[in-house]
Amino acid sequence: MGLVHATASHCPSPLAAAADLRLPDAPASGPRRGVLELGLSLRHAGPRPVRIAWELDGPADAPVVFVAGGISAHRHAAANALFPEAGWANDLVGAGRTLDPARWRILGVDYLGADGRIDAPIDTADQADAVAAVLDALGIDALRAFVGYSYGALVGLQFAIRHPRRLDRLVAVSGAHRAHPYAAAWRALQRKAVALGQLQCADVQGLSLARQFAMLSYRTPEEFEERFDAPPEVVNGRVRVAAEDYLDAAGARFVARTPVNAWLRLSESIDLHRIDPAQVTVPTLVVAVEGDRLVPLSDSVALVEALGTPGQLRVLRSAYGHDAFLKETDRIDGILAAALRNPGDSA
Amino acid sequence: MGLVHATASHCPSPLAAAADLRLPDAPASGPRRGVLELGLSLRHAGPRPVRIAWELDGPADAPVVFVAGGISAHRHAAANALFPEAGWANDLVGAGRTLDPARWRILGVDYLGADGRIDAPIDTADQADAVAAVLDALGIDALRAFVGYSYGALVGLQFAIRHPRRLDRLVAVSGAHRAHPYAAAWRALQRKAVALGQLQCADVQGLSLARQFAMLSYRTPEEFEERFDAPPEVVNGRVRVAAEDYLDAAGARFVARTPVNAWLRLSESIDLHRIDPAQVTVPTLVVAVEGDRLVPLSDSVALVEALGTPGQLRVLRSAYGHDAFLKETDRIDGILAAALRNPGDSA
Repeated sequence: MGLVHATASHCPSPLAAAADLRLPDAPASGPRRGVLELGLSLRHAGPRPVRIAWELDGPADAPVVFVAGGISAHRHAAANALFPEAGWANDLVGAGRTLDPARWRILGVDYLGADGRIDAPIDTADQADAVAAVLDALGIDALRAFVGYSYGALVGLQFAIRHPRRLDRLVAVSGAHRAHPYAAAWRALQRKAVALGQLQCADVQGLSLARQFAMLSYRTPEEFEERFDAPPEVVNGRVRVAAEDYLDAAGARFVARTPVNAWLRLSESIDLHRIDPAQVTVPTLVVAVEGDRLVPLSDSVALVEALGTPGQLRVLRSAYGHDAFLKETDRIDGILAAALRNPGDSA
Repeated sequence: MGLVHATASHCPSPLAAAADLRLPDAPASGPRRGVLELGLSLRHAGPRPVRIAWELDGPADAPVVFVAGGISAHRHAAANALFPEAGWANDLVGAGRTLDPARWRILGVDYLGADGRIDAPIDTADQADAVAAVLDALGIDALRAFVGYSYGALVGLQFAIRHPRRLDRLVAVSGAHRAHPYAAAWRALQRKAVALGQLQCADVQGLSLARQFAMLSYRTPEEFEERFDAPPEVVNGRVRVAAEDYLDAAGARFVARTPVNAWLRLSESIDLHRIDPAQVTVPTLVVAVEGDRLVPLSDSVALVEALGTPGQLRVLRSAYGHDAFLKETDRIDGILAAALRNPGDSA
């Protein structure tokens, strides 16, 4: 893995370009963005040039916490003075929260493949190596913590295995050592929906349908019963059930921001993920959600029991299922407060 | 609802034709088939001519048990001397089983719309009225029992409400008073997969994908973990998970025997179903499967508690989920034995 350069001159989006132009004058503290280009040997596709976009916020001398979300997340975790748009983890990162950029440096990336430019299988090991390359480029020796949700938890487990000396502790939320076979089948069918659309250049319709099926896996029957128990309607001779408006809207929002290839390759990446928990030797907290339809509690238990270090398990019960980390932000924040506390800290 | 005629002169399939030709010479006992044509006022689509195919087996003077399966089931419950091909309930109907055609007359139908000729919303109330018309045509005053599984349970509940004097008792397995909103959303997305295929006349691919998504709702994560825990493979640059061969085969088998329209309209019919349990006044046994992803146990409990008569609930635990009635046949048979026993019978 060779570092090509660490400056921020290649920009996948206008937003990133604007940020990068500020870099030469940017202070060592506060929000910064960049794009790193490097050569990386992909586990399933061999060596190739890749680019990885990053965002860093917080005091120059603060310990670094890496925050990683699901496959639709990105480097911009939360709004800040320089990049005021809402982040994907706006309710978890900010003043008054455990992940306060006044106290920590918060680092995030756009996942490898998120720009749709890699049309090859991408492993979570590749993502972990890309994160390590970003640390090299930024002169960060080690992370105080890697906090990963969903796909981010898988990348965190790989990072802990491949770069253990660069990590103080891991918090893995709603992610385990391998994709559950039922969840993998669910995702494989979503990818087939995209393929069906691609038969006729209806990629967008296919991706929208895939997203809608994914929404069912992210949420729970309890939530649907609460929100969508109205009787169906007959519209133009067709039956339309109460949740369809919601699902249509979710699909439309998703396709507007997601390259088809990016989604396909990152969806695959979840299913490729497979680690030996015994190789995880850094202190690890696994957070599971009872009712998660993608990562059953039994898999989180199996992960913790097989870790190569005494691990901890915290279990949440939430009607939001796999999406609980985006919804139960107060409870997640409390868990992070305990997880990031040092042994000597006062409570 | 006007009876047009009850003879068996219009035959939707060669098999039915062969059977119908035997009718004039058929004995009053033993297997018989026919197709009834009548005018029926469909709840959502108004009056129209419909046809409904039936099959009856058993001694002429035996009490009649109506057996109804899921939307893919049909009038042929089990192999018999005249129609030796396997039926959809071959392990539940036969010598040595509670539903022994030597003891009962076993009656079944092809659902309204199963031949793909009705391109309009079909209600479970319509199905119940069609069953009543078949009873009229066959000179059957009342059923000893209506045993319905999945969609058949919904039709049975409607039959109990609309034709209470024609029914001694109802056994409703894996079906409730309304479609659960999450299950309805799941089916609505399956119908969208068909619509996506129809955009390009790839109806068969769309229906295959819909069936594969349906398979996930019929089965459980436990079964998938048991059968498909092998690592994924990379085939032609794409990730292929362990369950895909199984799902592909299930989709291919299904499209070979199912008209697209039939499936669409019967899928919709499940979601249209909505009854007031208080209107069910015949003795009713509800059988639920813990782990059924389409009909949660809580819905079966709600159904039993709201019945207009003291009902009973039996709960099975099965890794086969919604499909348990097709798989746990010994346990279902035991439940039926108790359900069909008369109060005065010895155990």
